[in-house]
Amino acid sequence: MSDNQTICAVSTAPGIGGIAVVRISGHDAFGVCDRIFRAAADGVTIATMPANTVRFGQISDGNDPIDEVLVTKFCAPHSFTGENVVEISCHGSLYIQQTILQLLLAQGCRMAAAGEFTQRAFLHGKMDLSQAEAVADLIASQSRAAHRLAMNQMRGGFSNELTILRDKLLHFTSLIELELDFADHEELEFADRSELHQLANEIELKIKHLSDSFSVGNVIKNGIPVAIVGETNAGKSTLLNALVGEERAIVSDISGTTRDIIEESVNIDGVLFRFVDTAGIRQTTDTIERMGIERSFGAIAKSNIVLLVIDAAAVQSTDKQQINKILTEADGKKIILVFNKTDQVTPATLQEIMRAYAGAQVESIGISAKQHLNIDALRRQLSAAAQVPEVGQNDVTVTNMRHYEALLHAHDAILRVIDGLNSGISGDFLSQDLRECLNYLGEITGQITTDEVLGNIFSKFCIGK
Amino acid sequence: MSDNQTICAVSTAPGIGGIAVVRISGHDAFGVCDRIFRAAADGVTIATMPANTVRFGQISDGNDPIDEVLVTKFCAPHSFTGENVVEISCHGSLYIQQTILQLLLAQGCRMAAAGEFTQRAFLHGKMDLSQAEAVADLIASQSRAAHRLAMNQMRGGFSNELTILRDKLLHFTSLIELELDFADHEELEFADRSELHQLANEIELKIKHLSDSFSVGNVIKNGIPVAIVGETNAGKSTLLNALVGEERAIVSDISGTTRDIIEESVNIDGVLFRFVDTAGIRQTTDTIERMGIERSFGAIAKSNIVLLVIDAAAVQSTDKQQINKILTEADGKKIILVFNKTDQVTPATLQEIMRAYAGAQVESIGISAKQHLNIDALRRQLSAAAQVPEVGQNDVTVTNMRHYEALLHAHDAILRVIDGLNSGISGDFLSQDLRECLNYLGEITGQITTDEVLGNIFSKFCIGK
Repeated sequence: MSDNQTICAVSTAPGIGGIAVVRISGHDAFGVCDRIFRAAADGVTIATMPANTVRFGQISDGNDPIDEVLVTKFCAPHSFTGENVVEISCHGSLYIQQTILQLLLAQGCRMAAAGEFTQRAFLHGKMDLSQAEAVADLIASQSRAAHRLAMNQMRGGFSNELTILRDKLLHFTSLIELELDFADHEELEFADRSELHQLANEIELKIKHLSDSFSVGNVIKNGIPVAIVGETNAGKSTLLNALVGEERAIVSDISGTTRDIIEESVNIDGVLFRFVDTAGIRQTTDTIERMGIERSFGAIAKSNIVLLVIDAAAVQSTDKQQINKILTEADGKKIILVFNKTDQVTPATLQEIMRAYAGAQVESIGISAKQHLNIDALRRQLSAAAQVPEVGQNDVTVTNMRHYEALLHAHDAILRVIDGLNSGISGDFLSQDLRECLNYLGEITGQITTDEVLGNIFSKFCIGK
Repeated sequence: MSDNQTICAVSTAPGIGGIAVVRISGHDAFGVCDRIFRAAADGVTIATMPANTVRFGQISDGNDPIDEVLVTKFCAPHSFTGENVVEISCHGSLYIQQTILQLLLAQGCRMAAAGEFTQRAFLHGKMDLSQAEAVADLIASQSRAAHRLAMNQMRGGFSNELTILRDKLLHFTSLIELELDFADHEELEFADRSELHQLANEIELKIKHLSDSFSVGNVIKNGIPVAIVGETNAGKSTLLNALVGEERAIVSDISGTTRDIIEESVNIDGVLFRFVDTAGIRQTTDTIERMGIERSFGAIAKSNIVLLVIDAAAVQSTDKQQINKILTEADGKKIILVFNKTDQVTPATLQEIMRAYAGAQVESIGISAKQHLNIDALRRQLSAAAQVPEVGQNDVTVTNMRHYEALLHAHDAILRVIDGLNSGISGDFLSQDLRECLNYLGEITGQITTDEVLGNIFSKFCIGK
């Protein structure tokens, strides 16, 4: 992926639109495009156009006009990728998009791999690795909070701080390694141990703070897991549909989202919730059904909030034992008892039913999922139960599993450094732990990287970014 | 729709992409955008940027950064709409797209109606009506031929010619109407009748030529209708799937395409085919099933090509009477006998079966839809049977039902003009027919138009174009 070829791809969303944008990046971007583009104005070519300007003209396949387009020119290094870039804004038919790509390929371009434009931006020093990763998060973000975290990360976020601390640590490490070269002179100490100790403490604190932020960051990015549980036929799936309802258009689907279990994401008041519909829980001897029920308990374990749905219209047949079992499984989670089908009982009956459950340390609400009664109130209850801290403009939160793991490793290493300083171990041991910490910190920002790591990161991007 | 407000919409395909483009058009486009955009370079504003240039910067909601974007500025009248236009190229998350639109609305923009950018281009004289309509056709075109027709139409196509002829006709009409003002002087004849006769003949020919082109144009634009018929269980749906197969990704769905009957469009060698799967045909007394069979015969009547599928593995139970009935119904169409399930019979048996049908004046082919055997050969046969004339770069073909109807009316009127000239009718009658012809020709190019007609045309566009 790290060759020098000029690459191209459609950068706008797949499908038919009013316009589509084809992006070309690489040293031959201008030449390639000039061979298929003729500006409307005489004498204008992409090669001679000033940087950061737009011109109207025509893309042709030989004498065959393909489309009337706008081309925008960006010159290295002042472009997204840091290379020469042309963006062709064409009419958004699939035929035109494909034909323009084919013409570009025929002129020597190569199709960009997923995330390759952003990867080139990273390789040309336009952004560090965590910023590049934030681009993908930004595009995928489904809530204000997730969007803000991605923006903070893309604008530098914690990687700036980490880079500064790492540079300081690198300085000390070099000094210690220099001491090793003068191993004959044991009294030599280039690196001031007390200063190093202070720095190591500072780094330990910072890393701890960052890795601690992951649990919140992860919930914001991927949504707060909410298990919808209850007896069979209590109306769990209807409730899921009612909650998703008109919001579905907003959350949409990101391709690749797994659909093996019934799971829907909904944005409520700027916070993303991930609802998991489960199999109905009841006493059964059926093996397959028991497996489904086991999975329901598994969903409870993985959730932050449990919606326990009870059929208010059939409350006399409710298996109290099963309900208690669910309440036990959900111990420590936020539980909301959702009395469904309230349209089928009188208010007095409902009050009585709800009183019967009042002993449990849980909130409760009466709704009708089918008639959409009180769904908004339930949404508000969820919103209040979420307790996601407001993300500030400059809050630094780790949302990325890769960063989290690197931080945990770096934390282990810096703790060993501190221990070593406390016990006065020799420079060569100290240097090993320092190098390990430097490595893991460098992995986050991309100062230390491998093709495999890069491949993993950018293959998750969409084509055209 | 024809107010003066500044409008905005996402112009790229709906959904998540690497980038998305928000377009703003209207007299306040620069002001609106400057209130939410801050350029990265000091002192740069959209208002002061030169036309046709791009700048990098940030969209913010107050102090809250929403995205890092590129803005492109176009100044009236040198823009698509003929108005001041800003295009914001942002990261393609739904959250960002929606937030930017909300910010623009809060600054006084209005959401653009479907096709409103193109409508404004028409109203500002950037293109005539048939060119504007070609923009929608261009975006929807699914084959090389349909694309070329739309390109020809967008680049002026027949509307230029029609406008010239109409202008000449208008000149004569004015002269004749001038004569009417001098009705006392019967000898006066400002309009040379023989010249008018010659022009009317020329126009009649041109209109006839154009309206005749509609049958071809319509087939190119909407696809060649191919009915897949045969007995129940002959493998018709499997054949449809095999034909659509890997091509499906290319044809995709345009939202709004009706799916009431099983119909798939496939692009084969640059020509669009519209396959219609039908109910199996057999003798039955079941009323519902008979209705399905009636519809199958209806599909045959509407098709250009009929694929008659026969189960080669069950040929002894084939109802020859039904087959003959289908052949009779399909008389005059291009018929291809498709012997399916050839993987279940020996080559010798297949030859024998095919010989049994050799009497009919039809082509035949053996395939296995399930095993994908010989499907490519069938595709080639279809391609050859299509007989769609190659569309040249400057071919003028009517693809639009609205144009076709206006041409038919204009043709009626010009024939009455010619008749009138032949029989020497008076100027006032002549003038009526001339005016009618002028009206219908003017409707095509948009020189004569009503809000209702415009509403009809542009409501079929996608939002953002």
